[in-house]
Amino acid sequence: MRVLAFLDGTLGDPTKPYVRVDNTGVLRGDGIFETVLVVDGKPRELGPHLDRLARSAAMLDLPEPDLPLWEQAVQQVIDNWQGSSEIAVKLVYTRGSEGDPDVEPFCYALGMDIDDKIRTARAEGIAVVTLDRGFGPEISQRAPWLLLGAKTLSYAVNLAALREAGRRGADDVIFTATDGSVLEGPTSTVLVAKGRTLYTPPPTVGILPGTTQRAVFRAAENAGWTVKMETLRADELASADGVFLASSVRKVTRVHTLDGTRLPDSTDIHSELCDAYESQYA
Amino acid sequence: MRVLAFLDGTLGDPTKPYVRVDNTGVLRGDGIFETVLVVDGKPRELGPHLDRLARSAAMLDLPEPDLPLWEQAVQQVIDNWQGSSEIAVKLVYTRGSEGDPDVEPFCYALGMDIDDKIRTARAEGIAVVTLDRGFGPEISQRAPWLLLGAKTLSYAVNLAALREAGRRGADDVIFTATDGSVLEGPTSTVLVAKGRTLYTPPPTVGILPGTTQRAVFRAAENAGWTVKMETLRADELASADGVFLASSVRKVTRVHTLDGTRLPDSTDIHSELCDAYESQYA
Repeated sequence: MRVLAFLDGTLGDPTKPYVRVDNTGVLRGDGIFETVLVVDGKPRELGPHLDRLARSAAMLDLPEPDLPLWEQAVQQVIDNWQGSSEIAVKLVYTRGSEGDPDVEPFCYALGMDIDDKIRTARAEGIAVVTLDRGFGPEISQRAPWLLLGAKTLSYAVNLAALREAGRRGADDVIFTATDGSVLEGPTSTVLVAKGRTLYTPPPTVGILPGTTQRAVFRAAENAGWTVKMETLRADELASADGVFLASSVRKVTRVHTLDGTRLPDSTDIHSELCDAYESQYA
Repeated sequence: MRVLAFLDGTLGDPTKPYVRVDNTGVLRGDGIFETVLVVDGKPRELGPHLDRLARSAAMLDLPEPDLPLWEQAVQQVIDNWQGSSEIAVKLVYTRGSEGDPDVEPFCYALGMDIDDKIRTARAEGIAVVTLDRGFGPEISQRAPWLLLGAKTLSYAVNLAALREAGRRGADDVIFTATDGSVLEGPTSTVLVAKGRTLYTPPPTVGILPGTTQRAVFRAAENAGWTVKMETLRADELASADGVFLASSVRKVTRVHTLDGTRLPDSTDIHSELCDAYESQYA
């Protein structure tokens, strides 16, 4: 099931082409996106997703997105969805047309089913490998043109890393910086539990601020956890009480195996964090 | 003027949409491309471009491209071109459809006019700034998932670097590695002349092997130059006899200003290199 909505309030047919061959999204990965999870007709963390869309736009010198129009497009997808209870709604914002600055940005919201692989991962956990992303942890502030922290359409490296994980018999990736500190997953944020404290790396290391990570932190704090944004070393992960990847569609997914080594059983912590996360939308 | 050709031998209308909204090129910058220069109906370095397309495909685990079909699509563009004597033909190869592995890769050749800005740059030279790309020069071999050396559709960072150059009053960029060595331009290869020797950095530093650089090296060697692939330090550039950016559409473009400082006049070397480069296509 797919539903396609444009920012002018109209719907499209997702099996038909709407994108020109000179669109800068296709030719250059030049644009930004968000993926919003909708459950039972309610979008989760829509405000933070739209705020991040606006931040990404600013980092790419794109015209400021008209957030009420985006919100309306998400609602259009929801109103016309006739599939299962969950929708992954992609918000896609491409710059325009190569070589023709007069062409307006091309924008749409595309509702898609949640991948079966994602559902299995939520329930059973995943095996993850660490892969070097080649950057030092300080580069993001020094070199804003690297767009670290912007959610761009240029995800070829993220997907190549996932294929590399597959070759190594794993499901997903935790990127590390050249100094061995933990960064993020190709499409997720890393959460680490040690005792009753939940950690995530700070965005200043050159990662995307996570909307789901923020929601989980808020929920965990309400449930009595201490939450901390702190630099984490990859070699500390194996001894943590729990390692998780968070994102809108995968929610909080448990990492059971890291670089081929089984991690301590974090099933109970996982249940507790999932319950806390879900309870705020009940 | 634009001409659009598909790999099945048919033509398209470049003002009409052909790309689906779930195409992985749009959603993920997941695909590869080449830009081939055609002058007076003859494509330049088509063989090396197609070889590089095949290498990029292999690096992204894409199905091997059917090179005769691509060659035919380029010829279709040429046969149907009614514009000026030069065409920039983009070869675009996207993986397929997000979430639907059964959708075939979407491929096309798009003939476009050469940008006026590129023509001016060829004639008058350009001002360039050096920008850190954040990688060490050894990362490419160690981390193939970073796709350094593949010509992917994920060029958001390359375009952000060009906008940063614009903000600094320059036209283009030379990326440097974290150790201060010279890498490449966002869409070009760096050439440096010292005496009668022409240098370019080796692909092992994590850059794209240049088709035009190779053609210029071949021509320069025939004209009596020594040519060397050697690591270059950014702080040596200012004292070189000439610094140039090479690519199919810009040919050999002279850098007259580097990080705000006027470089030694390289007009004569530039003329000589351009003549040598052009003579092989006469």
